[in-house]
Amino acid sequence: MTQRPRIVIVGAGFGGLHAAQALAGKDVDVLLIDRQNYHTFTPLLYQVATCALDPSDIAYPIRQIFSRKRNIHVLMGEVEQIDSDARTLTIQLEDRAIQEPYDYLIVAAGSVTNYFGNEAVEANGFPLKDLNDAIFLRNHILQQFETAVRREDEAERRALTTLVVVGGGPTGLETAGALHELYNDVLKNDFPELERAQVILIEATKTLLTPYPEKLQDSARDQLASLGVRVILNTSVTDVGESYVKLADGQEIATHTLIWAAGTKGAPLSERLNLPLQRGGRVPLRPTMEVVEREAIYVVGDMAYLEDDKGQPYPMLIPVAQQEGKLAAHNILRRIAGQDQETFTYHDRGIMATIGRSRAVAWIFNRISLTGYLAWVAWLFLHLLWLLGFRNRLSVLMNWVWNYLTYDRSVRLILPSKRPLAVEAEPIYADEHELVEESG
Amino acid sequence: MTQRPRIVIVGAGFGGLHAAQALAGKDVDVLLIDRQNYHTFTPLLYQVATCALDPSDIAYPIRQIFSRKRNIHVLMGEVEQIDSDARTLTIQLEDRAIQEPYDYLIVAAGSVTNYFGNEAVEANGFPLKDLNDAIFLRNHILQQFETAVRREDEAERRALTTLVVVGGGPTGLETAGALHELYNDVLKNDFPELERAQVILIEATKTLLTPYPEKLQDSARDQLASLGVRVILNTSVTDVGESYVKLADGQEIATHTLIWAAGTKGAPLSERLNLPLQRGGRVPLRPTMEVVEREAIYVVGDMAYLEDDKGQPYPMLIPVAQQEGKLAAHNILRRIAGQDQETFTYHDRGIMATIGRSRAVAWIFNRISLTGYLAWVAWLFLHLLWLLGFRNRLSVLMNWVWNYLTYDRSVRLILPSKRPLAVEAEPIYADEHELVEESG
Repeated sequence: MTQRPRIVIVGAGFGGLHAAQALAGKDVDVLLIDRQNYHTFTPLLYQVATCALDPSDIAYPIRQIFSRKRNIHVLMGEVEQIDSDARTLTIQLEDRAIQEPYDYLIVAAGSVTNYFGNEAVEANGFPLKDLNDAIFLRNHILQQFETAVRREDEAERRALTTLVVVGGGPTGLETAGALHELYNDVLKNDFPELERAQVILIEATKTLLTPYPEKLQDSARDQLASLGVRVILNTSVTDVGESYVKLADGQEIATHTLIWAAGTKGAPLSERLNLPLQRGGRVPLRPTMEVVEREAIYVVGDMAYLEDDKGQPYPMLIPVAQQEGKLAAHNILRRIAGQDQETFTYHDRGIMATIGRSRAVAWIFNRISLTGYLAWVAWLFLHLLWLLGFRNRLSVLMNWVWNYLTYDRSVRLILPSKRPLAVEAEPIYADEHELVEESG
Repeated sequence: MTQRPRIVIVGAGFGGLHAAQALAGKDVDVLLIDRQNYHTFTPLLYQVATCALDPSDIAYPIRQIFSRKRNIHVLMGEVEQIDSDARTLTIQLEDRAIQEPYDYLIVAAGSVTNYFGNEAVEANGFPLKDLNDAIFLRNHILQQFETAVRREDEAERRALTTLVVVGGGPTGLETAGALHELYNDVLKNDFPELERAQVILIEATKTLLTPYPEKLQDSARDQLASLGVRVILNTSVTDVGESYVKLADGQEIATHTLIWAAGTKGAPLSERLNLPLQRGGRVPLRPTMEVVEREAIYVVGDMAYLEDDKGQPYPMLIPVAQQEGKLAAHNILRRIAGQDQETFTYHDRGIMATIGRSRAVAWIFNRISLTGYLAWVAWLFLHLLWLLGFRNRLSVLMNWVWNYLTYDRSVRLILPSKRPLAVEAEPIYADEHELVEESG
């Protein structure tokens, strides 16, 4: 413990990162803790899963971000306990547990896949919340085609080359679209022996992209259809096995691949605060981002539950997390300086989702709606801009240009990876398995 | 079984690849089998292990190489048995075993790490023979520094940041040099709290780079020293534990990282031929690359034992494997055409090894010797040239230029990977674990 106030930040996702950046160079000591040694640009995870990008393209070493910020210290480990009375954290390192004190705590541990208690989905579905999920899914998809090509039975071949995505949000749409392009541009040529593969997108409600205006919802659906993705609405998944998916309307789909993009919930770390949580396991807060009845603890990002003036909780979006992280940092500095804290107001710049080559939808400043090529170019440009680091931008740009011009996919390799599900865990990998429950 | 002669090639390394390319478009059916779905450019494995390159930079999808070659078929699987009487192979796929017939067989399964029966080294050492080895080693090295930074005890910190490389051949030299640069250019800044790390290169004989002229051997040693690598000659490793290395001269080095680049031997598949093997588990052959007393079976590359006119076996080098693979393919075509087969003569273009930035040695056409900057530039240029595929060349070039200009390392991520040692195998990964015994 030093003379200067010590601020500990849990999680180097977008919320934690912006909090740390707001505290860099200030007269405080900061300890930034994450399970990984890198920050993940999650909006492009689906492109790693579909062989369009390298893992390193969307990951950035945390220590490098703060290498010149003397007051920011980085620790790779997993926070196990929060003692809000003693103001200490228990952190599991690779080989042993340590204790770290804090004066102020910013919890930004993000969200985890929400299976809504469906154990069949949890056991057989593929999540897409972190880099390991993406690599594991990539391996699985490529392996399905390698297996299918040696199968005599046509029904078996079709099941192996049928890919089901559940969830009509941006992740579901983008994954379904990218999967279809992966097949259409690459796998079709790699495996000429196989019949046409199929990508199916399933959404339980009656619309895709719920928060978008109806016009864009319809456009998204049309663009998916024009690509060749089969869209099933108003139907929920009731059961999943290794080789089938059962839907509420009774139909059964033969497949070995169910990608679960149908829900997220606050990271389990929220339970360590020992207070009643809001729906989705999110932590109720004051508008200053402070936890009610927990001195000196702030929560930001997907874990935070804060309602807008319409009584609606702010969505689990990157810009929300970034703005909350920044505010929490500034409010802590204000407290230290004896000033009043400010309350959160969300500056909504808009939302966008890409469906494939020249296909996308964008809803900007809640006013402007873009579709097709224009929305797609805007999406590409902004995501390049948002990426951390010139090298990653350069590499992503190179891969995108390459894929666009050649209709090729650069990284269709079956590389080692670990099943994300904790049930499959073996001791040596335990901490990585946990990852799926808390993407930093 | 088709009308046309069916040639099966085992292994898509440099030998198998060149054999397949020589048979592409010819009036034969070819089945190319590999454990992986990609060909690995092994000379740059050490750069993946030291965070300089992405795995996908040095891996190339096998199906893509032959996507326009209608007579070349690709199979991802592991050859378990060779029945040279029935002329069939037993191949283990992901989920089950299949049989494949052949008229002619080219075995190019490469080599595996040779621990010379030292179980301690096998259990605690890190091999560097395939992509999984490289990723696993990269993770381990980065993890050592993450662990060291939280250790109070100075001796423990030093042990964690001491990296030992065993083997004075090109792989050992290049790995030691690259490790030191990784520390010097990157990890030193990422972990300012740590004392100076140390890289030690150990060689059992009295010289590095045995096949090179003495002048180049001395130069390599000087260049390593000028970089800061400690070189220990004339000393063999007697024992290795999780936290120490014991040497024949009695000294003990505290370290958690021993990289074993001290030996390779023919892939175990050679034993499936049921005939007396030469030293290093290599298969004795006629100069036509045919196996003695095994009808229609050819062996090429690291598995092949063939002596030059001085009675010395041809070395386990990529150009040898390439030329042997090509000859085996041509000889099979000649047999089919009823022509006499040709015998192997090696066209030696030279050997080279890089030690680090502007540091290298090259011995070209057994005449020209280059050292330092000139040898380094030649090395860079030729390896870019030898890489498969424009995209990989572009990406490697980009990473090299980036690393050179910024003294940065692009991909220092701790990503999922599997311990290469079979003893650690768990069922789900079994086939990948085996990989270390047969790098395609």
